[in-house]
Amino acid sequence: MTRERLYLFDTTLRDGAQTAGVDFTLQDKILVARLLDGLGVDYVEGGFPGANPTDTEFFSAPRTARARFTAFGMTKRAGRSASNDPGLQGVLRAEAQACCFVAKSWDFHVVEALGISLEENLGQIRETVEASVAAGRETMIDCEHFFDGFKANPSYALACLEAAIDAGARWAVMCDTNGGTTVEEVAAIVARAAGVVPGERLGIHAHDDMGLGVANSLAAVRAGARQIQGTLNGLGERCGNANLTTLIPTLKLKPEFAERFEIAVSDEALASLSQLSRSFDELLNRPANRYAPYVGVNAFATKAGIHASAILKNPRTYEHVPPESVGNRRRLLVSDQGGKSNLLAELARVGVEADRGDPRVDVLLALVKEREAQGYAYEGADASFALLARRALGRVPDYFSVESFRVMVERRHNAVGELVTVSEAVVKVVVDGEPLITAAEGIGPVNALDLALRKDLGRYQPFITDLKLTDYKVRILNGGTEAITRVLIESTDGKGESWTTVGVSPNIIDASFEALVDSVTYKLLRAGAPAGASSLAEACGA
Amino acid sequence: MTRERLYLFDTTLRDGAQTAGVDFTLQDKILVARLLDGLGVDYVEGGFPGANPTDTEFFSAPRTARARFTAFGMTKRAGRSASNDPGLQGVLRAEAQACCFVAKSWDFHVVEALGISLEENLGQIRETVEASVAAGRETMIDCEHFFDGFKANPSYALACLEAAIDAGARWAVMCDTNGGTTVEEVAAIVARAAGVVPGERLGIHAHDDMGLGVANSLAAVRAGARQIQGTLNGLGERCGNANLTTLIPTLKLKPEFAERFEIAVSDEALASLSQLSRSFDELLNRPANRYAPYVGVNAFATKAGIHASAILKNPRTYEHVPPESVGNRRRLLVSDQGGKSNLLAELARVGVEADRGDPRVDVLLALVKEREAQGYAYEGADASFALLARRALGRVPDYFSVESFRVMVERRHNAVGELVTVSEAVVKVVVDGEPLITAAEGIGPVNALDLALRKDLGRYQPFITDLKLTDYKVRILNGGTEAITRVLIESTDGKGESWTTVGVSPNIIDASFEALVDSVTYKLLRAGAPAGASSLAEACGA
Repeated sequence: MTRERLYLFDTTLRDGAQTAGVDFTLQDKILVARLLDGLGVDYVEGGFPGANPTDTEFFSAPRTARARFTAFGMTKRAGRSASNDPGLQGVLRAEAQACCFVAKSWDFHVVEALGISLEENLGQIRETVEASVAAGRETMIDCEHFFDGFKANPSYALACLEAAIDAGARWAVMCDTNGGTTVEEVAAIVARAAGVVPGERLGIHAHDDMGLGVANSLAAVRAGARQIQGTLNGLGERCGNANLTTLIPTLKLKPEFAERFEIAVSDEALASLSQLSRSFDELLNRPANRYAPYVGVNAFATKAGIHASAILKNPRTYEHVPPESVGNRRRLLVSDQGGKSNLLAELARVGVEADRGDPRVDVLLALVKEREAQGYAYEGADASFALLARRALGRVPDYFSVESFRVMVERRHNAVGELVTVSEAVVKVVVDGEPLITAAEGIGPVNALDLALRKDLGRYQPFITDLKLTDYKVRILNGGTEAITRVLIESTDGKGESWTTVGVSPNIIDASFEALVDSVTYKLLRAGAPAGASSLAEACGA
Repeated sequence: MTRERLYLFDTTLRDGAQTAGVDFTLQDKILVARLLDGLGVDYVEGGFPGANPTDTEFFSAPRTARARFTAFGMTKRAGRSASNDPGLQGVLRAEAQACCFVAKSWDFHVVEALGISLEENLGQIRETVEASVAAGRETMIDCEHFFDGFKANPSYALACLEAAIDAGARWAVMCDTNGGTTVEEVAAIVARAAGVVPGERLGIHAHDDMGLGVANSLAAVRAGARQIQGTLNGLGERCGNANLTTLIPTLKLKPEFAERFEIAVSDEALASLSQLSRSFDELLNRPANRYAPYVGVNAFATKAGIHASAILKNPRTYEHVPPESVGNRRRLLVSDQGGKSNLLAELARVGVEADRGDPRVDVLLALVKEREAQGYAYEGADASFALLARRALGRVPDYFSVESFRVMVERRHNAVGELVTVSEAVVKVVVDGEPLITAAEGIGPVNALDLALRKDLGRYQPFITDLKLTDYKVRILNGGTEAITRVLIESTDGKGESWTTVGVSPNIIDASFEALVDSVTYKLLRAGAPAGASSLAEACGA
């Protein structure tokens, strides 16, 4: 069965650049265009040449190899010819294969905002398209406020689409500019439009102001449209545009669409989508949405005990698509909610062998639940979980014990009268029965404690020289004075491995120290450090 | 025209508790139940009594006043009677008005996972409903995998709904457990279900794995269902459940729904939705989604350009609903001029009078931008913002100055050999030229500093006796060793007023102390405390 071709139009670099908090540099734009080109979208809209120096410069050279590089602009102004409109000419001078011009299609806006007659507006659409086609550009018209316009004056909104197509535009795009149109309305209105203009010339540009950006795009396709406009990770003005990172897997993997339509994104590109989505957030220097459909870290994560055992038996029963198809992976989380199956799966994942029938596994399960009730969060602290499990199963040597610690933070005027804050820690540990005392200064109290603890661990010192703290997170579990503090610490070694540990206490310093000690112990365990003398003695029954 | 009643079922505390990274304490659950009760949802599902200590304790007392407090459980097990099933009895013993039991409705799962016949499963549904109804509970059955089950065996999936309703269940809920069902499929399948069971007995439970949680819920309502299950901010397993924070405004504000349906959420409650959504994220100690439909900080934000001036002329042209209707506000992210308008609006809000032409306002604007770049967040710290503004405008007296402080945390063995951690602080302040030195012990270092600082402020002491710390939050702004710590402290007085202050530093103790000092200063300002002697002297030019 031959499938119809569906076209993807990416506007990350144009509408996405309207996102509050997002500012693309020229380098960013070049990088993103390359990502999109590799992904397999059909059009990359790069910005508005002439509107600002970055966009003008970006359009001074071709930036894509496969996708059509597209310039955005406005239809020509009233009262001058296309060749005399500097804005329009600026767009046509850009190094672009396609041009997309925004036009008004709501009668009220034509009269009020442009101050011209409805007929004059149609004339401007035609002249703009003709000028662009004459300049050799594949041409599209974005009909702004198309759905609101249709509700106010259906025949005029449709006339705008017709004017564009009759004048030679490849595409007429229906924009839900305010994002306020429901799925039902989109379906009905697009069906009407597809009765006037061929569906294979219609595009949909949806926003997410009602959480319907994706649903409205799919509804438009069902109703006949054949171009979808969207952005990576749903970037865009206000709540964002239709999210291509969500739409692409649905179009590729769901039979309802995959059997009818073909898009230019390959299976291999699909399998790199999670990575691409996260790289893009890295580039924007913002945390990735862990709950994003398909590509989020948690998109295939499950806590529920009843679900976990079923997933292990047959993944398809609780996963609507295979995580690998979008380059993601399954996560089974240990928690309050989970049962023994989750626990066993997690033990396997962190490399701890255990037998379902071993009574110590039940003790461990009860212990995990009890400690999570106290505020521990093992799902985010694999290393502390592995230590807890190995201890319950009797497999963690006593490398060292902490006798005492002391940390002091002092703010005072220094000798030259400046206000300074000094943090200083002293830690006393016992290794092989021998007390070792160390001190260090740090940026803050936790840094000082960390440095002091790792300064001298006797014969274990060689095993921890490459240990480094990379992240420190604090959460207060209850407000007010009876607050419990939970600290998560991420550490790495020199070989690119990283692990996370957790500490919980009413005292933030205690909680931090607990997580630090777990981190060091975990490192010793990984490095295969030999057990301490006292531990050996105990093991021999001494 | 009479409107049909549509029921909202909140599962934030049950399915939402499955969210990776979310762990509700008992206190959290009590607070969230109160929030939901105030919002006007019809059912608050609180968890699974008997499954873990937190949920069992949570159900030991009624937790809602208006909404029906609902316990979740599983249908009775095979091979034993309802009265002999401890799980089922545990649920029926809970202090709940309603019970919701999950049942299998996919034939494959019944045979494979439960290992019983299809007819036996229907019997278990019936018996469970009968036992729950007999115990005086409003009863519902959650049909797990209903849509996948329908696709495999339509008549059996429908038979499960029928069995529940025939046995006396108030609701039979169709769950898209894996979140893999499209809008079109939901519409068609719910229409079939509504032909077998009355629509006013049907509920929809949708997930967001394809970004369609909201759209699928709305499609089910169009097709006849009259109960929507969802969560605050879309919490829930994997990608989350249908987001009630998005659905409620659509149901209340969009004519397509508002003209046909009535929900129990009042206009006033709707107008507090943005605040509620953000408070909930605060409680979870996670950053709010700035791009969330309706309630996100950026949901009505527009960057400089063609839209901004049009919005000022006629907001409805670029806003699909009025921001105030959901308690949100318009943000115009324009250049320096617009920044100034924003600042003046913020100053008015916190009660600081300022003149647009005053050059100190420009200095303040630059200062706010600079400090926000350092990590300060004045959006969430009104009191620190008011102090910063008043200082820039020369209107904060010098009540006291901090000469130095010192805090020590020590863990050691006490006289009877127990391991204890002691926190002790010393603070030296100057009031009216006179040094005052105080010391205090606390649960942790910040508590000790807080107690020491407020122990003796000389003649200002009477103004701060009723001051109390009610919340303390920490966020690390960059990972690793160069991490910046941001501390937010909420304080109250005896009169029910509360205010929030912020401190930022690489040292967590410094950051905390800064926020503490701001809180005390703000209290003195509010209480109308007289300026200190040194400050008066300076004011007189001495």
